[in-house]
Amino acid sequence: MTVLVFLDPAHDDGTVADASRPQLMATDLGATRGDGIFESMLAVGGTPRKEQAHLDRLASSAAALDLTVPEAGAWSRAIRTGLREFAAAEPDRTDAVVKLIATRGVEGAGSATAWVQVSPVPASTLRQRETGLRVLFLERGYDSTVAQRAPWLLMGAKTLSYAVNMAAVRHARAHGADDVIFTSSDGKVLEGPTSTVLLAHDRDGLKTLLTPQLESGILAGTSQSALFAAAKKQGWELGYGPLEPHHLLEADAVWLISSIRLLAPVLSLDGQDLRTSTALTAELTELVDRFV
Amino acid sequence: MTVLVFLDPAHDDGTVADASRPQLMATDLGATRGDGIFESMLAVGGTPRKEQAHLDRLASSAAALDLTVPEAGAWSRAIRTGLREFAAAEPDRTDAVVKLIATRGVEGAGSATAWVQVSPVPASTLRQRETGLRVLFLERGYDSTVAQRAPWLLMGAKTLSYAVNMAAVRHARAHGADDVIFTSSDGKVLEGPTSTVLLAHDRDGLKTLLTPQLESGILAGTSQSALFAAAKKQGWELGYGPLEPHHLLEADAVWLISSIRLLAPVLSLDGQDLRTSTALTAELTELVDRFV
Repeated sequence: MTVLVFLDPAHDDGTVADASRPQLMATDLGATRGDGIFESMLAVGGTPRKEQAHLDRLASSAAALDLTVPEAGAWSRAIRTGLREFAAAEPDRTDAVVKLIATRGVEGAGSATAWVQVSPVPASTLRQRETGLRVLFLERGYDSTVAQRAPWLLMGAKTLSYAVNMAAVRHARAHGADDVIFTSSDGKVLEGPTSTVLLAHDRDGLKTLLTPQLESGILAGTSQSALFAAAKKQGWELGYGPLEPHHLLEADAVWLISSIRLLAPVLSLDGQDLRTSTALTAELTELVDRFV
Repeated sequence: MTVLVFLDPAHDDGTVADASRPQLMATDLGATRGDGIFESMLAVGGTPRKEQAHLDRLASSAAALDLTVPEAGAWSRAIRTGLREFAAAEPDRTDAVVKLIATRGVEGAGSATAWVQVSPVPASTLRQRETGLRVLFLERGYDSTVAQRAPWLLMGAKTLSYAVNMAAVRHARAHGADDVIFTSSDGKVLEGPTSTVLLAHDRDGLKTLLTPQLESGILAGTSQSALFAAAKKQGWELGYGPLEPHHLLEADAVWLISSIRLLAPVLSLDGQDLRTSTALTAELTELVDRFV
């Protein structure tokens, strides 16, 4: 089942709402303009992972959209309310998806609509984590420098305006693939529609983990960031783009990482098989599983 | 007041819903992913203008998003239901905004959520039509050829993912302007966030009306198209881009045209005053007012 908790200044812990009934106004700017922000995090055994990183990124997205949202403490309390309700309803599930959503609110009202949604992890997500991904490169249309000169493009903010991200994944599925890695118009590797790109080299005993640089306008990956910190402690070298498609084709392993699907190996790019490494995937997955 | 009519296979004329109560599921992909499409049209004296053009564009947007939406007849009947309810509630208003919205529906349900919203024309919209607009050029990030090679970018589809359009208008307002004209990364004039760009030359008795070419990835303007057809009958020459900013600065008049605000003169671009023409605005507004 899905649990909804609306943030509400009058109720410290939020207000639980019936997810089987309509709860949003049809004039909410989240629904009519995609004008809002969100976060998705995994909760394990009733505890959200990387909560502070997600709350920090939510605040950063809100700033990019000039959107006033509830403070972090109110989100945290609503998350706890949601997880408690979810555990009561679904005692046999250890994992849950926790989504935080804030919209610009009902047209003319001038205050955000904000809620927490707790729901089971989709079986298809778990399956992709296990089996790996066939991926297409698709052009995102932007060059890798535009984010720095055009803040109104909201690059790096996690907005509700995800129609292009969803269309890209549909395009991949219609062409026999599972997911997408976006490239910039100047040929740089950017990100997945809902994930961050990682690649590894394992040569002469030196292990290196690489990801595209944030300045290219991609979303700051909370999982990538936590994994980099953990891998560094294990002696990995770290590197940040610019990356081009050939770097992925030449790597010893490539993954898409995100908060719910976690570390998913990329098996092929545009139909070309990649090197994969069960050992590296296992080693990094162990670090991911220890995220708190 | 706002009238809502949900399209419903079980009710030919749609189902009127209370707009003062929540009517959307919090898990609707329109609200959580901006995954849907819309149209806005003006109704005058209870009759929608350019209805067929809007229904055609809705169908074209649906195709771009691979979204199955109700057929045109169902929309038309729901529009009539909405306008009848609106007239009963607001007998003194001759004009109304009619919005058609279709989302990908509730996650997992696999069928669109579709509704018609009828509401008063905002006073601020009427004011801008009268006073004219100070406009900023803002880069849209895309080059003017990307739409043709990257259909997953959904350019030319009117999606609910309008966060960037809204952010651009906020940016303009924060910088002392009213609206925006987007430019491509290769320096071409594209469109406004919610309007089409028009410019006129009036030289040696020859009047020419110009607009950017559709191939640059802009939305096909229903008002621009209807105005071009009407102006042609009045002896105007017509032209289609590519246009660059200097073409606007050199024109005898520039407007942003859209279905609700109609023809709004552009007074300045990036702070530089433009030529305006009361005579040309009046002549073209007369044609716009005759749209059916």
